[in-house]
Amino acid sequence: MQTLKIHTKGNNDIINITENIQEVLNKSNLKAKSGIINLCVIGSTAGLTTIEYEPNLNKDFQEFFNKIIPEGDYHHHETWHDDNGHSHVRASLLKPDLTVPFQDGKLVLGTWQQIILMDFDTRSRDREIAVTILKE
Amino acid sequence: MQTLKIHTKGNNDIINITENIQEVLNKSNLKAKSGIINLCVIGSTAGLTTIEYEPNLNKDFQEFFNKIIPEGDYHHHETWHDDNGHSHVRASLLKPDLTVPFQDGKLVLGTWQQIILMDFDTRSRDREIAVTILKE
Amino acid sequence: MQTLKIHTKGNNDIINITENIQEVLNKSNLKAKSGIINLCVIGSTAGLTTIEYEPNLNKDFQEFFNKIIPEGDYHHHETWHDDNGHSHVRASLLKPDLTVPFQDGKLVLGTWQQIILMDFDTRSRDREIAVTILKE
Repeated sequence: MQTLKIHTKGNNDIINITENIQEVLNKSNLKAKSGIINLCVIGSTAGLTTIEYEPNLNKDFQEFFNKIIPEGDYHHHETWHDDNGHSHVRASLLKPDLTVPFQDGKLVLGTWQQIILMDFDTRSRDREIAVTILKE
Repeated sequence: MQTLKIHTKGNNDIINITENIQEVLNKSNLKAKSGIINLCVIGSTAGLTTIEYEPNLNKDFQEFFNKIIPEGDYHHHETWHDDNGHSHVRASLLKPDLTVPFQDGKLVLGTWQQIILMDFDTRSRDREIAVTILKE
Repeated sequence: MQTLKIHTKGNNDIINITENIQEVLNKSNLKAKSGIINLCVIGSTAGLTTIEYEPNLNKDFQEFFNKIIPEGDYHHHETWHDDNGHSHVRASLLKPDLTVPFQDGKLVLGTWQQIILMDFDTRSRDREIAVTILKE
């Protein structure tokens, strides 16, 4: 297991981590190998998925979360006098894990399909993503 | 890694791929073996999950996506003069991957639990699902 | 593959299964080992994710599902004269699987990040979660 460190701005920030994950594969010297790579973001206010990474679609995805899980009053705020109840609900819905295949050392994804970290917290964060490679 | 090809009608089409995945296991000669099977659909307008596959519930699941992520205006349409912004948002929410166990060469699922590919694109598509088997 | 049995109250019941999963790792004698652990709940009216497990946030997450997928009329009820259409839609959205890493025999999670089983069915259930460990 390796740890990938990613700085985010929080507040629905979407980071394309496809190249970072491919680099982990490259350094692992798996050129002729196939298998899966499991990603899991540490913490309960961020999630992982894939998207066609382009600014307009990113905005659509962000607005979707703002609409169905708006900022505002959450019971969670009574627990810590915090303001990120919506961040937690969004993250638990999107889930922290993603497991994708690689073949001949390369991620198997569509041309318009990128792996993203989405940070729902209400402030800038230094995130850690656990990366585990399993050969076929 | 193998590739499973599935033809869809797009527009929320739900395809039961449970038997296709079981066939991949059968052909891999894993009768006495256990492990996991990772599925990942290539592309950014389709997703995978499980459901009790029956026409009425499929309709409920489709109507749910129509309601919370309706067709209409999306920023993404400005990028490609396309019409499938809602397809992308739905797919990124549902996510492209699913990892399920098998035991003695058989998928471990409930009687009323089927693996489905859901295609959110606005047209018919020939989909590819990457299938990777890992023995315990 | 092992099976973890969990009793739930249904109706959005959220169960913290982090310690149960850590116990499975402990009994597998993997103290110096790393890898991934795949969890998959059998059945089509429950799901898995991570959350900061505390009563107020649990309530927020439950209310979110009540809001976007309310109880009421579903086409599925015509099939079985049942009442749990919303349970199925919620479960298919949250998905049945979760794959998380472990290092030196310990689950790699944030301090405020717990693994939960969420049971959406309309009655008490005895759930089975398939647990598969794969070493790196």
